[in-house]
Amino acid sequence: MLDFWLEYASTYSYPAAERISALARAAGATVRWRPFLLGPIFQTQGWTTSPFNIYPQKGQYMWRDLARTCESLGLPFRRPDPFPQNSVLAARVALIGFTDGWGEAFSRAVYRAEFAEGRNIGDTAVIADLLGALHLDAASVIERAQAPENKMRLRGETEQARDLGIFGAPSFVAPDGELFWGNDRLEAALDWAKR
Amino acid sequence: MLDFWLEYASTYSYPAAERISALARAAGATVRWRPFLLGPIFQTQGWTTSPFNIYPQKGQYMWRDLARTCESLGLPFRRPDPFPQNSVLAARVALIGFTDGWGEAFSRAVYRAEFAEGRNIGDTAVIADLLGALHLDAASVIERAQAPENKMRLRGETEQARDLGIFGAPSFVAPDGELFWGNDRLEAALDWAKR
Repeated sequence: MLDFWLEYASTYSYPAAERISALARAAGATVRWRPFLLGPIFQTQGWTTSPFNIYPQKGQYMWRDLARTCESLGLPFRRPDPFPQNSVLAARVALIGFTDGWGEAFSRAVYRAEFAEGRNIGDTAVIADLLGALHLDAASVIERAQAPENKMRLRGETEQARDLGIFGAPSFVAPDGELFWGNDRLEAALDWAKR
Repeated sequence: MLDFWLEYASTYSYPAAERISALARAAGATVRWRPFLLGPIFQTQGWTTSPFNIYPQKGQYMWRDLARTCESLGLPFRRPDPFPQNSVLAARVALIGFTDGWGEAFSRAVYRAEFAEGRNIGDTAVIADLLGALHLDAASVIERAQAPENKMRLRGETEQARDLGIFGAPSFVAPDGELFWGNDRLEAALDWAKR
């Protein structure tokens, strides 16, 4: 069992979400998807936006590196505008989805919309459209997602991420608490989880 | 031809320096080692120490990840104290070494002293000892390293690194200017340089 901590505004969570299921199957590992929010964790470091915006040279490099990574994986890529996007509704909806069994498909649809199709996942109409494409009742799902107990649930997940030492996304946590950060560490995390 | 930009205080430059020669040989690529200083580049971002010290959660993770990386490569590792170490003399000496033909051996000796043997490369006696182990006249090399023209040369290299968009180490730059950052990107950089 490996916990996959994902943030819907996070660039490298996109290739990780595309890669993890096939790699986990090949490794014979079970993966639990754990949506959370990086914003509150960044805020405790004094950041009010993505570090890629705060440090322009690093940001410029990241976009190039992400484009190369997607190209090498055969994934479509278009730089999102705005960046970062508001991922709160996507994360709340995803929690409902992982309870109901469509969380993975929804997650991949969110990343494709954001990082390949030039859409803004902070727009409720976009999330509703993605839900509709999964043959779900968007209005009813969004209502459950915005209910106070679901908001609290996401807050709890984010607090747990912070308690695990998570400071970026994607992150992977093995049952013994071993932490791996970044799409580049997915294989190592699966290896560790199998030990 | 691939330029390998290395900083002697940089953690992940250690495994990169240990890996690059064999990988370049296997790829049929030529590598040019380019010592530089990250300090002046960090200062323009408002950092007066390593970001691993500024962001403790990220720093704590980095030490764990570096230990795992070294273990997987069979490299000895001991967390350096202090960190980061003053790498100015090491970089100045290395420029002499790459002119005279012993730069790679010296570089690896510096990283081993710092990241495996618990020594402080900011100490002139340690650098002199490493030079002696390479059967060099330490006093004469250090005198050349500290000469004004060599200091200016290192400053020029660091300015060139910044102009290339380098913001961390190790970095790799292909002849067309394509930039790769981090030990994790060494293979991709060699692939690119061969295209």
